[in-house]
Amino acid sequence: MCLLTLSCREHSLEYSLFATPELTALAWGTVEGIGTGLPVRLQYDYGSPVACGATPQLDSLVEALAYVLQRLYSASEGGPLVPGRDIRAVGHRVVHGGERFRQSVAIDGLVLAEIARLERLAPKYNRPNRAGIEAALQLLPAACHVAIFDTAFHQTLPPYAYHYPLPHDWYRKHGVRRYGFHGPSHLYLSRRAALRLGRDVADCRLITVHMELGISLCAIAGGCSVDTSMGFTPVEGTMQERRSGTIDPGIPGFMMDWQELSAQQVEEVLNEKSGLLGVVGQGRGRRDVIERANAGEARAALAMRMECYGLRKYLGAYLAALGGCDAIVFSCGQGALEAPLRQQLLQGLEAFGVHLDGGRNACSEHLQEERCISPSQAAVQLWIIPTREEQVYAEDTLAVCAGSCREPWLQSYRFAREL
Amino acid sequence: MCLLTLSCREHSLEYSLFATPELTALAWGTVEGIGTGLPVRLQYDYGSPVACGATPQLDSLVEALAYVLQRLYSASEGGPLVPGRDIRAVGHRVVHGGERFRQSVAIDGLVLAEIARLERLAPKYNRPNRAGIEAALQLLPAACHVAIFDTAFHQTLPPYAYHYPLPHDWYRKHGVRRYGFHGPSHLYLSRRAALRLGRDVADCRLITVHMELGISLCAIAGGCSVDTSMGFTPVEGTMQERRSGTIDPGIPGFMMDWQELSAQQVEEVLNEKSGLLGVVGQGRGRRDVIERANAGEARAALAMRMECYGLRKYLGAYLAALGGCDAIVFSCGQGALEAPLRQQLLQGLEAFGVHLDGGRNACSEHLQEERCISPSQAAVQLWIIPTREEQVYAEDTLAVCAGSCREPWLQSYRFAREL
Repeated sequence: MCLLTLSCREHSLEYSLFATPELTALAWGTVEGIGTGLPVRLQYDYGSPVACGATPQLDSLVEALAYVLQRLYSASEGGPLVPGRDIRAVGHRVVHGGERFRQSVAIDGLVLAEIARLERLAPKYNRPNRAGIEAALQLLPAACHVAIFDTAFHQTLPPYAYHYPLPHDWYRKHGVRRYGFHGPSHLYLSRRAALRLGRDVADCRLITVHMELGISLCAIAGGCSVDTSMGFTPVEGTMQERRSGTIDPGIPGFMMDWQELSAQQVEEVLNEKSGLLGVVGQGRGRRDVIERANAGEARAALAMRMECYGLRKYLGAYLAALGGCDAIVFSCGQGALEAPLRQQLLQGLEAFGVHLDGGRNACSEHLQEERCISPSQAAVQLWIIPTREEQVYAEDTLAVCAGSCREPWLQSYRFAREL
Repeated sequence: MCLLTLSCREHSLEYSLFATPELTALAWGTVEGIGTGLPVRLQYDYGSPVACGATPQLDSLVEALAYVLQRLYSASEGGPLVPGRDIRAVGHRVVHGGERFRQSVAIDGLVLAEIARLERLAPKYNRPNRAGIEAALQLLPAACHVAIFDTAFHQTLPPYAYHYPLPHDWYRKHGVRRYGFHGPSHLYLSRRAALRLGRDVADCRLITVHMELGISLCAIAGGCSVDTSMGFTPVEGTMQERRSGTIDPGIPGFMMDWQELSAQQVEEVLNEKSGLLGVVGQGRGRRDVIERANAGEARAALAMRMECYGLRKYLGAYLAALGGCDAIVFSCGQGALEAPLRQQLLQGLEAFGVHLDGGRNACSEHLQEERCISPSQAAVQLWIIPTREEQVYAEDTLAVCAGSCREPWLQSYRFAREL
């Protein structure tokens, strides 16, 4: 039998297919450009890379998912699904679970209604997540459908870390508080790090740095998230590829007043035209900015210094919040390209027991390997751990179907036990 | 001869009067409630406290300043100004000097026009500052008038610390960058701390914490500000008595969209109804909140924990930015009441060489004395230093009148040399 995990955005989806119960990876793929009126862009991997050929125009998530399933069943393309090897469970990534969802749950009408209600907190994310669920319910009606929330892992934040210094009514009536995102990634990184340290995660203080298109940090003590850089929305925190991260809260109002921008226009700039790309003013993404910075281009170099400086301050803040830590864990966003970035951002932290092994940091041969980049006996170990959220989606989905799922900080994961 | 320093807000002014050239303090006072249609509230001190009696209604800053001068000249009230002992120089606090003013300057038409132009960056502050200058020019036309800027000391911030991760045009066309405020206070605290440490400020790494109604932190290396918590406006940074400090930049837009608040309404909430008072929901100010927290009231205790946790994270961030530090310096906002606050906020920093001497911290007998509150041999010394911005205003005013004023980080101050 098989298990599918699904992460849907407005114009794209990403899936992974596993054989159950051992969770062997069978396939991974993305579809981009859904509903744009253009042919979609496909990437997929059935163990060995597959050529894509011409692609159709797909107008909705249900069309896109039907197309994915059709290809997964296509014998001529070597699709891993064959008759009798059906998808029995689907794990859906849902970005916002509010305060209601502290763990992964089986999707029924009530859950779906609650996910819809939470759309006001994250319309850009929960709406396509829900559309993806509805598409999958229609196409795979016999499967067990499970929702895994980005926010659930952060429900252990203490009140002094999740409240904002805003009128209490904004929290009570409108739900304005820190939720945090990328929960499954921080969970995965922390469990793998504890395993690598040879210690029980309950005895570790860790800082995990999730670096992809979006970036967030998490302070973890006793296996629980105690602080995280993203907040009410994913725009808060350290600067990201396109998102600003934290800025002076007086700036949006100033730009509205003086430049006659609407709230929506400012929000779009903060989410889409800021961060690395905002500072540089152009560019094709993080990889491009790093390469231009390494080549000495002034604004790209400034953007990288800003990013490193901001990350360093977050590490300092979380070291203070945790009272010291055992390991700092980086996910592996752009791999080898990020070696100079890590070197720059860790400068000045030597006084806190943080030492980078330059050789180990620069070594880029085995990108998908977990590796220690500090001297082995350093007070604060530094690790690169390629993150695999889909492992959390898959294990939670199995656990929910088996009726054994608990809150993420209580759940026992296979990836936390086996090197 | 005398020198007057003046700090004007929309409905209040604060002044200090000094004898020159030795800068002996002659008088200090405040007038509150200007232009409110009610009798003003006076506080003044001519060496020994003075009873206030009935007060008039004063409709403008020029009326208020005329009233102050009249009382300073009043022989029957023991006013320190006598004929022949006139005010020869006036030092005006101006909040926003933009990138144009890197030091204190003599006020002429061009300077006044530039201060007016900068009102768009800080309308709430530069407008009354300018009104105060115009009132003083009118009432004391023969004096030398000098502007001292809150922002000047922070003009040494490196680009990676003053730029925001926003579109570059927002900086280039609209001046959106970190400016920082409370410059004279951070300057004063750093020079006094270096003197107390027995070291040249050029060889010190310091973190200064200015705690009054507004709160800001400053990281200082080599005598220069290298980072500060307030940014484009004074609302950024750590939570304050009424200001929110940093929040998720997505929150203002959310509240506008869903609660149909205008940008102005949100700005008012962030500046006036947030911070300690926002969380508690009521209260007469910081002193009140601290007392209620100490008495065990839940929301007041939450507000205090939030403030302490936020300050601790800033200390960690600046320790990381500086690569360690020699001293953390607190100004003396609410004096003895803040002892438990300091104790709470410094918890967890022991791993970084920060140790509080509980007894010294609790000792509240000599509030206006500079005192060390760490063990004397601690790696990071902790100091309480009552801040005295008016000393910076006065010395800069003298220096400008004498033609010897330089940027604050180059200027040699008397208070930096004499214990």
